[in-house]
Amino acid sequence: MEMLNLSISSTRALQNPKPPFTLAPQISAPSTIKFINPTSRKLNLKCQYSDQQQRPDVSQPRQETPKVFIGHSIYKGKAALTVEPRPPEFAPLDSGAFKLTKEGFVLLQFAPAAGVRQYDWSRKQVFSLSVTEIGNLISLGARDSCEFFHDPFKGKSDEGRVRKVLKVEPLPDGSGHFFNLSVQNKLINMDESIYIPVTKAEFAILVSAFNFAVPYLLGWHTFANSIRPEDITRSNNANSRSGADLEWNR
Amino acid sequence: MEMLNLSISSTRALQNPKPPFTLAPQISAPSTIKFINPTSRKLNLKCQYSDQQQRPDVSQPRQETPKVFIGHSIYKGKAALTVEPRPPEFAPLDSGAFKLTKEGFVLLQFAPAAGVRQYDWSRKQVFSLSVTEIGNLISLGARDSCEFFHDPFKGKSDEGRVRKVLKVEPLPDGSGHFFNLSVQNKLINMDESIYIPVTKAEFAILVSAFNFAVPYLLGWHTFANSIRPEDITRSNNANSRSGADLEWNR
Amino acid sequence: MEMLNLSISSTRALQNPKPPFTLAPQISAPSTIKFINPTSRKLNLKCQYSDQQQRPDVSQPRQETPKVFIGHSIYKGKAALTVEPRPPEFAPLDSGAFKLTKEGFVLLQFAPAAGVRQYDWSRKQVFSLSVTEIGNLISLGARDSCEFFHDPFKGKSDEGRVRKVLKVEPLPDGSGHFFNLSVQNKLINMDESIYIPVTKAEFAILVSAFNFAVPYLLGWHTFANSIRPEDITRSNNANSRSGADLEWNR
Amino acid sequence: MEMLNLSISSTRALQNPKPPFTLAPQISAPSTIKFINPTSRKLNLKCQYSDQQQRPDVSQPRQETPKVFIGHSIYKGKAALTVEPRPPEFAPLDSGAFKLTKEGFVLLQFAPAAGVRQYDWSRKQVFSLSVTEIGNLISLGARDSCEFFHDPFKGKSDEGRVRKVLKVEPLPDGSGHFFNLSVQNKLINMDESIYIPVTKAEFAILVSAFNFAVPYLLGWHTFANSIRPEDITRSNNANSRSGADLEWNR
Repeated sequence: MEMLNLSISSTRALQNPKPPFTLAPQISAPSTIKFINPTSRKLNLKCQYSDQQQRPDVSQPRQETPKVFIGHSIYKGKAALTVEPRPPEFAPLDSGAFKLTKEGFVLLQFAPAAGVRQYDWSRKQVFSLSVTEIGNLISLGARDSCEFFHDPFKGKSDEGRVRKVLKVEPLPDGSGHFFNLSVQNKLINMDESIYIPVTKAEFAILVSAFNFAVPYLLGWHTFANSIRPEDITRSNNANSRSGADLEWNR
Repeated sequence: MEMLNLSISSTRALQNPKPPFTLAPQISAPSTIKFINPTSRKLNLKCQYSDQQQRPDVSQPRQETPKVFIGHSIYKGKAALTVEPRPPEFAPLDSGAFKLTKEGFVLLQFAPAAGVRQYDWSRKQVFSLSVTEIGNLISLGARDSCEFFHDPFKGKSDEGRVRKVLKVEPLPDGSGHFFNLSVQNKLINMDESIYIPVTKAEFAILVSAFNFAVPYLLGWHTFANSIRPEDITRSNNANSRSGADLEWNR
Repeated sequence: MEMLNLSISSTRALQNPKPPFTLAPQISAPSTIKFINPTSRKLNLKCQYSDQQQRPDVSQPRQETPKVFIGHSIYKGKAALTVEPRPPEFAPLDSGAFKLTKEGFVLLQFAPAAGVRQYDWSRKQVFSLSVTEIGNLISLGARDSCEFFHDPFKGKSDEGRVRKVLKVEPLPDGSGHFFNLSVQNKLINMDESIYIPVTKAEFAILVSAFNFAVPYLLGWHTFANSIRPEDITRSNNANSRSGADLEWNR
Repeated sequence: MEMLNLSISSTRALQNPKPPFTLAPQISAPSTIKFINPTSRKLNLKCQYSDQQQRPDVSQPRQETPKVFIGHSIYKGKAALTVEPRPPEFAPLDSGAFKLTKEGFVLLQFAPAAGVRQYDWSRKQVFSLSVTEIGNLISLGARDSCEFFHDPFKGKSDEGRVRKVLKVEPLPDGSGHFFNLSVQNKLINMDESIYIPVTKAEFAILVSAFNFAVPYLLGWHTFANSIRPEDITRSNNANSRSGADLEWNR
């Protein structure tokens, strides 16, 4: 089966490996790849970011959920792609409630190959898929394509100096899609383009994972968690709404 | 990409901003919009409603899940649309069990634009999608349209004085759907119609979020939470059912 | 919109109302129906059954999840249909583990109309959809039909005395499906057939709810609950498998 | 209905029954099959494996989730197929976080029939579906087929001695798919092929269950569990990122 021959799929923790890193030669299982993951300054920075997200407010101690790195990777001959969801952000309100202030996103990381089953993560390029861009991907037909433009400096003094384009286009034989990330960075005179073919099966997993993630990226899981019969039976006797508000209470 | 140019998507807590409010000019990221959210009398009223929903029964103290405002918004040139799920209602039974007395719904809030990236939430119109109406939207084909009529005063003395119509129609170029909410309010001599185009990608996110929400709106998550192997092994030896009840125990 | 005119959708706790019962005349919101739910002998029986399911093992005290009645109902001119998921059953093993011994199901209850917005639940007929039958419904095309036969006494002395047939057929205009439950009961000389039209939108909600329920009916949520990084890191050093078992550890 | 006549669907705990085992003759419900499950050496081995997965780290005591066997089975005239999800694996990091080191999978077990409603589990053949292979199945059209090759000894000295092929092909009448597992084992001179027809309805349940399982196989549920408004509001004031990192913080 042609499609399977081109595809090496595995999992990898989402720390930044030092470039260029080498695969451990003693591969013990058919499609499992093990990495040498040396700690690096960059890694520490990211861990700190993650720790901030996970550290519970000291004012309300509670059993901590450990941070788990769960990047899902697709490895191909010329590049690797790792996808990982990133949480939404919330801000506390005076009332003790919270509001969602930034929706979550899915981080795509593309690394070019540096040899057989070796990927140069020092040259990786990243692209953050917004919720609406995820909507594009989960509704993409087998013959559809889409294209997203990002400028990380939009609205800043360096606006226009970095330009990222992600194109997702059907493979000529209809067996999947090409993901192509091009990054033009005039600040460091860099112009890179990384291609990776994604089979229909791999795409189906991305769509399934994205569909799972969307409610969490929107923060709607907090709605789900909040509905407990014991808590909300009191709202039944709220009959004093004005006409304009009746629609709220239909 | 034309579609992306018309779409400014962001997130916003579901408090009612004072109309007309202005966007903070120092936008720091591509498609993020920050709002000045002055507290208002109306906001307080809504918070109180929410607090009622979340306040746990004092007779059974338990760790409180904080209220989180999680409206998902779509911002376009002429209007903004915010969607937010609202919980079902339950009533306690003498047995200590609960029954669902009202299914949840999804609240749609439409606000007309009041300038560039400014929306006049004082002129917002709301529409509560019932579970069946949500069923219409999640099964809507790319070329399908649907239409819902609500009368907030149906069965009351003011029946027929307020008439709301939500139409969802395909965009001429097939790139998405128009959402059009018309409200005729004879009580205050108001007749307003707000249109907003929703791209295929944005619609896919709405469908994904609605599919997530449906079981919670129906209260079926309480079924899910109640199935624990430790609890329900006793029902195995219930063999004394009459013929008419055997179908229950198949 | 014709479809909406025929459809009155609402929610109702799944206790058996006394037949014929009457709707409370003071309907306060467009499509909400309130019921007078007198307790009945039959109701008590069912509650007892439910209590058995929910009563935790006294040997391991734990916060009890209250039982919640969450039947989702579709009300039409000639009949009403209520759907409600029923949990799988488990048996304890000597090892302290559990095994699923019976998959859950979805209980359908059909009641004929006894007047305008009145349904005679004393004449209700029930049908338990197995997981595979649910699979039929969630994969049913707009123009497809399916048919299920049940004999509650199969393998017993009264085999063949009661015969139930559920037919789901497309409505002639393609706007949804007819659900038709026929029950022939030779034990009590009863032959009843109840029809109810289910719109495409209502069917989409059933499919969404069924898709939500399926993993719980299969008990697969216990798999989901059991995966915690803290618990399962030890299985990594299991390298001593024989050839035949290697496939288990790929 | 022809399709229903060929299909006997039931549930069975995923322990290995001794071959050949016999069905208990006193079947009490239409499509429920009870097994005599004698303990065996092989069973003990598997239980030990499961116990390892479930045993919590003694350093952090916590309420234990009991292990539950939740294989979903399809029984047909010539063979039975059981599907069961298997958890991903994680490794602790020095930081106290965890990383996913191996994605979960779905274990397929095929057993040939040994008589009427009897299956010879001693001759069972197993096949572990990777996440990408699951992606193939959940995106398989009614007329599509797919084929997977596994070599449990790939990269080992016995590479090529055992060859497994799973073919999934449409049934000639379009009513479902054939699952065919062929195993050639040169180590023990064994060459076995087991076929089982899977109806469209049964396949829909597999797809629904697989879609449910995918996020857990990827470990993405740990992402879902980690998002709590109380915990992650601090990441808002992370404004000191360099240009290259801005994409992370869009």
